Amino acid sequence: MSKIVVIGGSAAGMAAAAKAKRMDPSSEVIVFERSGYVSYAPCGIPYYVEGLVRDIDELVYYKLDYFREKRGIDVRIHHNVTDVDVDKRIVYVDDLKNNRSYKVAYDKLMVATGGMAIKPPIDGVDLDGIHTIRTLEDGESLRKDVLKSDVVGIVGGGYIGIEVAEAVASIGKKTILFEMLDHLMPNFDKEPAEPIKEELVKHGVDVHLGEKVVEFTGNGKVRKVVTDKGSYDVDTVLMAVGVRPNVSLAKSMGIELGVTGAIKVDKHMKTNIEDIFAGGDNSETINLVTGKPTYVPLAPAANKMGRVAGENMVGGNAVFPGVLGTAVTKAFDLEIGKVGLSLREALDNGFDAVAVDITHGAKSHYYPGFTKLNLRLVADRKSHRILGGQLTGYYGVLARVDTLAAAITANMTTDQLKMLDLAYAPPFAPVWDILIVAANVIEKKY
Amino acid sequence: MSKIVVIGGSAAGMAAAAKAKRMDPSSEVIVFERSGYVSYAPCGIPYYVEGLVRDIDELVYYKLDYFREKRGIDVRIHHNVTDVDVDKRIVYVDDLKNNRSYKVAYDKLMVATGGMAIKPPIDGVDLDGIHTIRTLEDGESLRKDVLKSDVVGIVGGGYIGIEVAEAVASIGKKTILFEMLDHLMPNFDKEPAEPIKEELVKHGVDVHLGEKVVEFTGNGKVRKVVTDKGSYDVDTVLMAVGVRPNVSLAKSMGIELGVTGAIKVDKHMKTNIEDIFAGGDNSETINLVTGKPTYVPLAPAANKMGRVAGENMVGGNAVFPGVLGTAVTKAFDLEIGKVGLSLREALDNGFDAVAVDITHGAKSHYYPGFTKLNLRLVADRKSHRILGGQLTGYYGVLARVDTLAAAITANMTTDQLKMLDLAYAPPFAPVWDILIVAANVIEKKY
Repeated sequence: MSKIVVIGGSAAGMAAAAKAKRMDPSSEVIVFERSGYVSYAPCGIPYYVEGLVRDIDELVYYKLDYFREKRGIDVRIHHNVTDVDVDKRIVYVDDLKNNRSYKVAYDKLMVATGGMAIKPPIDGVDLDGIHTIRTLEDGESLRKDVLKSDVVGIVGGGYIGIEVAEAVASIGKKTILFEMLDHLMPNFDKEPAEPIKEELVKHGVDVHLGEKVVEFTGNGKVRKVVTDKGSYDVDTVLMAVGVRPNVSLAKSMGIELGVTGAIKVDKHMKTNIEDIFAGGDNSETINLVTGKPTYVPLAPAANKMGRVAGENMVGGNAVFPGVLGTAVTKAFDLEIGKVGLSLREALDNGFDAVAVDITHGAKSHYYPGFTKLNLRLVADRKSHRILGGQLTGYYGVLARVDTLAAAITANMTTDQLKMLDLAYAPPFAPVWDILIVAANVIEKKY
Repeated sequence: MSKIVVIGGSAAGMAAAAKAKRMDPSSEVIVFERSGYVSYAPCGIPYYVEGLVRDIDELVYYKLDYFREKRGIDVRIHHNVTDVDVDKRIVYVDDLKNNRSYKVAYDKLMVATGGMAIKPPIDGVDLDGIHTIRTLEDGESLRKDVLKSDVVGIVGGGYIGIEVAEAVASIGKKTILFEMLDHLMPNFDKEPAEPIKEELVKHGVDVHLGEKVVEFTGNGKVRKVVTDKGSYDVDTVLMAVGVRPNVSLAKSMGIELGVTGAIKVDKHMKTNIEDIFAGGDNSETINLVTGKPTYVPLAPAANKMGRVAGENMVGGNAVFPGVLGTAVTKAFDLEIGKVGLSLREALDNGFDAVAVDITHGAKSHYYPGFTKLNLRLVADRKSHRILGGQLTGYYGVLARVDTLAAAITANMTTDQLKMLDLAYAPPFAPVWDILIVAANVIEKKY
């Protein structure tokens, strides 16, 4: 019987705990989680703010009792791990509710401390009313403030900024979105991101691109967002400028970090210290297109990394191969998706990359609800290897993003893509799918 | 300047003509089409019958004038090719409207005679009011009869039968569907097809499975469908029991047929006769899973085959690799999709195949409109290679079918599938996609 301790009860931590216990029911598995929730969906928070999800508890996948009683996992919430003695294999932990400290020995340790919302060192960033969202408690607090507000400022035009802009504008609040870059979705190229701004503006969001927030002012509570171009009255602010790995404990333990600043793990999710595993939003992984280390704090990868770590903690030999950074979201009715590299990212990584922009039907032109998709397909000029895709449209983005994910993972070329036997039916897809059209057209650029 | 003659102006024929002319503008390209339409979408006919498409002309992709004036292609409708002298390279053609015959010489010939709806030799099958659908004229004739009818009988529970059942029931007609097999969608396994029957029944379609039509009766016009189990009053009947290749002209020319009875072409769409190409619903191709010849008369393949033939007729070296039989459709609100082999097809083809049936969320459980998908994933026990997928559900079928199409084409294993970086966002897909869940669960069967 081995004793497994997991630090952190979000995606990677709970996936590791569940997998380890399932594969070796004789093992003792303890999870320490600082917040009051485990196994929850932070990605659902914008929809809770919007009111589409009524009760924050709906964002919990499995309740504590499920893990404790059905799965035999000893989950301890409101517990903060303060230190780990890696030589003696002992975890030091504060029980926050009962105000006591104790220690626990382990045979295998999983460090799943997750990520933290970045709070850049801007004057006034610690004023009341300035939020970030990671935990469900953060979501509750943001919604409470938004409901009392007339004007909400959102700093950052990535996934979370866009989703919360939709949420806040949908419930009738004046919404001002600030993005430092000249386009939304920082990991998109500029042109493919243009429909996203149009959609936000169409729904009343005041979008400020190329505008840098330099200060927040207010007396205790935030009252103004000051940028390099102006000053805006606000009641509440969401900072959504990115996520960084939560590695302070790992660093103190001597766990090696990678070039991205996240924990360096091998494909088995092992750290440099024997019997210590890591995974999720505190860890780096491999970008399957570039082959280089990357930091992509997204839930599907965190869950898979956790599962691989869990299996390997009880003697398995599972492998996590890496990520493509695949993601979808929406801004109001506009679906948005990306997989692999943007043209900019491809060029920056040394590829001789070319791109085509295609606008093409998402379904047959005569079928009711006909609408178009926009795709930028990126490929390598010489090898014709598909490097990435960026999509927007009112229907069918997920299908094309996931199809490209499979194609890119398989190192498919556009020559293969153009002959791919994709499905066709008037209500769902046109006879020439946009992926196939793009694979044909991109040949002119080679 | 070479002279290219194309026999047949549907998907493959027009794709070939357009591609050849674009690649070699100096070539002369003549298309002979027996019906009054070229470049049309027979797959849209059910939606015309349903009234979702108001005007049959909406099913035409490009008008005659477009091909004649913009593309420089000499399209001749209402022209029936009666014979080809392959030694002298001469096509004999009847101009049906002007009641005259003439001949035309060619350098390269494309035989794109398409498919024909199967009319089995059942007593009474030639009565008035018994329809098949291939051409737009067929669609107009069917809708006219359906509108005058109280009861419509549909024979055959494949794509077309199901789509027309939806159409006819949606406009308030009593609809009786007969399928000889014990499940709908003959190329599905029985269990994955069950939700399709439930959906049709829920919407008032009278579905008779395992019931064989033995006779049609009526005085000139069909009045009854007689089966091995009963007799049913009808006003109109659609025969939708399949498609067979239209190869009579090809046979008379000495073009070799394959084991499926369709024209045998190589991967360049060449027939056994020099300078004669074929493609589309009259030709067989390779099933990419089995590596064996297959006959899959679906539009995306026909278009691609035509394009490959067109390129090669003007000196190109394009390759059509084959098909997976990928297809989607819907029955009312239920989305239906298949790619690769069913379990039955896999076993029949000698694979040591296993399957899992998974029911899993199509989006996050807390997002409004949450619904589930059903997937049967089929894989090879030893190699773990993915062999096929069958899906039904109220959201998200296309995404999974197309993703599997890419994965199967790349010979991906379920070990790779379970680590695929598929997109996640609460409105579109759950954090563990059904494909990944299935790839994990199927391991228990190996």
